[in-house]
Amino acid sequence: MTTLETVSEQRCFDGVQGFYKHPSTACGGEMTFAVYRPPQALSGARRPVVTWLAGLTCTPETFTIKAGAQRVAAQLGLILVMPDTSPRGAGIAGEDDSYDFGSAAGFYLDATQEPWSRNYNMETYVTRELAEIVAANFPIDAEAQGIFGHSMGGHGALTLHLRHPERYRSVSAFAPVSAPMQCPWGQKAFRNYLGEDRDAWRQHDASELVRARPSDARMLIDQGRQDQFLEEQLKPEIFEAACKEAGQPYELRMHDGYDHSYYFVQTFIEDHLRHHAAALGA
Amino acid sequence: MTTLETVSEQRCFDGVQGFYKHPSTACGGEMTFAVYRPPQALSGARRPVVTWLAGLTCTPETFTIKAGAQRVAAQLGLILVMPDTSPRGAGIAGEDDSYDFGSAAGFYLDATQEPWSRNYNMETYVTRELAEIVAANFPIDAEAQGIFGHSMGGHGALTLHLRHPERYRSVSAFAPVSAPMQCPWGQKAFRNYLGEDRDAWRQHDASELVRARPSDARMLIDQGRQDQFLEEQLKPEIFEAACKEAGQPYELRMHDGYDHSYYFVQTFIEDHLRHHAAALGA
Repeated sequence: MTTLETVSEQRCFDGVQGFYKHPSTACGGEMTFAVYRPPQALSGARRPVVTWLAGLTCTPETFTIKAGAQRVAAQLGLILVMPDTSPRGAGIAGEDDSYDFGSAAGFYLDATQEPWSRNYNMETYVTRELAEIVAANFPIDAEAQGIFGHSMGGHGALTLHLRHPERYRSVSAFAPVSAPMQCPWGQKAFRNYLGEDRDAWRQHDASELVRARPSDARMLIDQGRQDQFLEEQLKPEIFEAACKEAGQPYELRMHDGYDHSYYFVQTFIEDHLRHHAAALGA
Repeated sequence: MTTLETVSEQRCFDGVQGFYKHPSTACGGEMTFAVYRPPQALSGARRPVVTWLAGLTCTPETFTIKAGAQRVAAQLGLILVMPDTSPRGAGIAGEDDSYDFGSAAGFYLDATQEPWSRNYNMETYVTRELAEIVAANFPIDAEAQGIFGHSMGGHGALTLHLRHPERYRSVSAFAPVSAPMQCPWGQKAFRNYLGEDRDAWRQHDASELVRARPSDARMLIDQGRQDQFLEEQLKPEIFEAACKEAGQPYELRMHDGYDHSYYFVQTFIEDHLRHHAAALGA
């Protein structure tokens, strides 16, 4: 049984915004995550749960302070889970040198290459280890789980949904890295975490995955047209073409004037939470 | 005419969240502030404006990322103005040494004591200099202005309203420092900014001011019962007694379980914005 330590718990919209830490086997060190319990869950009633995957440079706190999600989660009775974006303090040379690789840039996959493979196992961490800890400590309805995220976390949401459709029944993304094999962020991460084997890369590229194994879930994706990373890093048009080809249900909404920030995320967060609540029967 | 430089402008809830900087006479250096323009103001239509005064350690960004206010301001058509909490980089020895005095702790008054009096003139800055800059550069309805804030900024909102009722027609506060002459934060600030003259202190203490000159505006005040600063620093009971004695209209709401953080602020921000909109005829 994993020991869970409460870092803090604060009242928010009559629910509880908490931060917790625990020793992690998958990441070889201590990990911190956040959970928002809506008022409906405080009496122990089992509620649907949606996991938020944050982007490069973010921590478990980012979404809890910047997205305005608790208001809507409290209305809908959704539990929110916010993992960290990578291991921290693994002690690997260079892990803190880049904003787009190493710490705060785990890319939600299990590294196969030394020296990263011992700690950088965020897919196992999120989908297995953290999922079990959450199920053991919070009143989730394990049959009603969804996943969403922003930027690198949008990549994580799309790929973890496509790789684990039985676990994550609903999915959505803000400005996701949609074709990581074809952009600098993805190539840097895949080369260093996975080596040069392109077949391994394909297992973690949403545009490749959706061609190989589309899901039944309708994907909601929001993207700002003034996003500074749109052309070089995000490439929603590649993912859209792959969805069409594969018959994947999706809705890609392009928004004039919006950029890559949480001012964009907070604008559309209610739509995403309602999308998950509807899909999960909340 | 003051030169206003745009630092950034980002789309948010179909309005614009902007940051601006300018040389300040009152503060003897460059000052940064934030403005949120709701969609109704983008065509130039004049809209009511509410100024938010932040607390100790905060910047103009704090409220814009943590309060979830833009969603409601966009619905109500309110312009929001977020000044900084003090001058920055004045070059005064010790100005950055404390979280509760000097930079990020201007207490929304004009200092009379050396070496602070040259730069630390936040009352003149907020009520005159910044107000004129905002009026000249944004489509505000100058007859429909309100003020609100949190903690030290709640103190600022109450005192600046009471000292300038003709300018700020509506007022509200979250966890305000309500009787600064009787708490460590206030005593430290008043002693250093204003000297030992207690009559000068009384001009910036909401509980003293309201006895001397109550206003016609109904004050909305929210306070968490689990606020870690409630007993030592905030003392709403002193202000409440003064309001009763003076016939000041007010509503003090005590909330079980809530602390001093922006998780508390975001929970009740909609009520405050609706309070201002109603008072200002938005």
